[in-house]
Amino acid sequence: MTTRQVWRLARRPEGDIDKGDLTFTEEEQRAPEAGEALVEVIYLSLDPTNRIWMSDREQYMPPVEVGDPMRGGICGRVVSSRAPGLPEGTLVAGLGEWASHVIVEEGKVSPMRGVEGLPLAAAFGTFGGVGMTAYFGLLDIGQPQAGETLVVSAAAGGVGQIVGQIGKIKGCRVIGIAGGAEKCRFITEDLGFDHAIDYKNEDVGAALDRLAPDGVDIDFENVGGPIMQAVLERMNNFGRIPLCGLISQYNERGETQGGAPAYWETMLMRRLTVRGFIVTDFAPRFSEAAAQLGQWLAEGRLTTRQDVRQGLDRADDYVKLLYSGGNFGKLLVEVSPPA
Amino acid sequence: MTTRQVWRLARRPEGDIDKGDLTFTEEEQRAPEAGEALVEVIYLSLDPTNRIWMSDREQYMPPVEVGDPMRGGICGRVVSSRAPGLPEGTLVAGLGEWASHVIVEEGKVSPMRGVEGLPLAAAFGTFGGVGMTAYFGLLDIGQPQAGETLVVSAAAGGVGQIVGQIGKIKGCRVIGIAGGAEKCRFITEDLGFDHAIDYKNEDVGAALDRLAPDGVDIDFENVGGPIMQAVLERMNNFGRIPLCGLISQYNERGETQGGAPAYWETMLMRRLTVRGFIVTDFAPRFSEAAAQLGQWLAEGRLTTRQDVRQGLDRADDYVKLLYSGGNFGKLLVEVSPPA
Repeated sequence: MTTRQVWRLARRPEGDIDKGDLTFTEEEQRAPEAGEALVEVIYLSLDPTNRIWMSDREQYMPPVEVGDPMRGGICGRVVSSRAPGLPEGTLVAGLGEWASHVIVEEGKVSPMRGVEGLPLAAAFGTFGGVGMTAYFGLLDIGQPQAGETLVVSAAAGGVGQIVGQIGKIKGCRVIGIAGGAEKCRFITEDLGFDHAIDYKNEDVGAALDRLAPDGVDIDFENVGGPIMQAVLERMNNFGRIPLCGLISQYNERGETQGGAPAYWETMLMRRLTVRGFIVTDFAPRFSEAAAQLGQWLAEGRLTTRQDVRQGLDRADDYVKLLYSGGNFGKLLVEVSPPA
Repeated sequence: MTTRQVWRLARRPEGDIDKGDLTFTEEEQRAPEAGEALVEVIYLSLDPTNRIWMSDREQYMPPVEVGDPMRGGICGRVVSSRAPGLPEGTLVAGLGEWASHVIVEEGKVSPMRGVEGLPLAAAFGTFGGVGMTAYFGLLDIGQPQAGETLVVSAAAGGVGQIVGQIGKIKGCRVIGIAGGAEKCRFITEDLGFDHAIDYKNEDVGAALDRLAPDGVDIDFENVGGPIMQAVLERMNNFGRIPLCGLISQYNERGETQGGAPAYWETMLMRRLTVRGFIVTDFAPRFSEAAAQLGQWLAEGRLTTRQDVRQGLDRADDYVKLLYSGGNFGKLLVEVSPPA
């Protein structure tokens, strides 16, 4: 009989994770069944999202149930297999458990990539979830353009350090926000970020005013709370905010600083897109819209209602109707007769 | 000498617009100069954004200065011209003033479109700013797909009524939120929306639970505040929120209900895009990312730092480092030796 060591969720943490929220046990390790492999874990990845999984707040996959093994990213080696695609000795990475051994299903884990010539920890720390997060979050959502200013919070962390470097590759001015002089030195001197802001010893807003006097184009947001607020206040028009994490809020019990947390957490957990717009932004394409609207109108598929009021001299009263809901349809003042 | 009637901003409103915030005067109308035309206004469009222009809060174009004519959308007829492209008699629409006559510059106003066979008020109320707003906001940002559920607030208003009808044309289930039975009847019976919610007489959240039991895919947001919050709470994964207006907040003096207004107003005024994401959403493209990251790594353009801690039995302590900033680099637990 094989045994394994495993962490189980004993109770949901309240606020900070506390001793006793998780329990460490030794237990029997069952053998793999058809399509499964037994993996000896080499590295367990600890990530901010672990705290979400421990809670029963709204989240993007089922929470870990109390009593169940704690979920975590792992990489390791197949030590026994009944899965043809996962022969013994294969290095794999994927979602597993906080455990010395885990059973994985074929197709649910990936063979480790990019291992050649790289320490396994670096390969896992680059090509695992963090590298994917940085890559798609910045490139697909952030849409970085050369010359733009990119701010990354939690900049020395697993995701942040890769985001900033991809930003540099794409020609951005990169400002990282990190805690402490050592991390700030690391991201500028070792990783080549243009600037670092030490949020533990500096006013983030004042530092941004100094380092990004022309504003911020992309906020790769890992943190939330007052740091996010300071960046948001300095965003340029048409800025993009890949909302990757809100680590400052995960241990909060109720309302957080800097606004209602429910809004931002909902946007993150449900992967919503919110885009502010002003109609004049689309001015070059107005004729396209007019042609289509005209066609729908001609086909009887579109009708509109106006609320036409008489007399320019009463415009100051009429405008108030909008805020009380007193108008019914598009509100117009007839200033002179139409024909 | 010609005279005109014009509204000027006498002082910035505090809260609701008050008598005396605007003053109505008669004054001399100067003649057009080269490149300009004099327009007799037929319709003045009153829009929620008027209240923003009266204030000095952050906004997307300069506020109207105290003492200046109040800005507004107009349509009217050229009555005298020194602009070759705007001959006398031309019907034009664009940004003007709350006035009986306005001087317009060639290129800054558009000839009226879609007028044939349509009352001028309807043409202006469809092809003016409201139609453009509805068209691009819904189609470009909302990305409606057949079978999806679209919620429109201020649904009987100038923009809302067009948004809902385009939603129907695109095959969406459309739920409009409006105030009062008459408006609710109008949007369902006259415009063909599937459902209406009377926010003045119904609990919006409860009504959404009943009418959209499978959640909301698109929230065309005109209102903000508690109505927005009720919709946001019921958004489906990957939902889109074209953030068009926050009319419930424009008369507010300080904090509003339903969260910090500054966040949402900033997103609107600066046309920011916020998109929540979870890395697994991109799983089908992980190999693309791995190939690119591997190349950058091989070229020496990317480096990463791991913070490798020893011993699975201490994982419960290690995970706390993430929330205190105690780790430095991607946090990994070495569970067994890597090779």
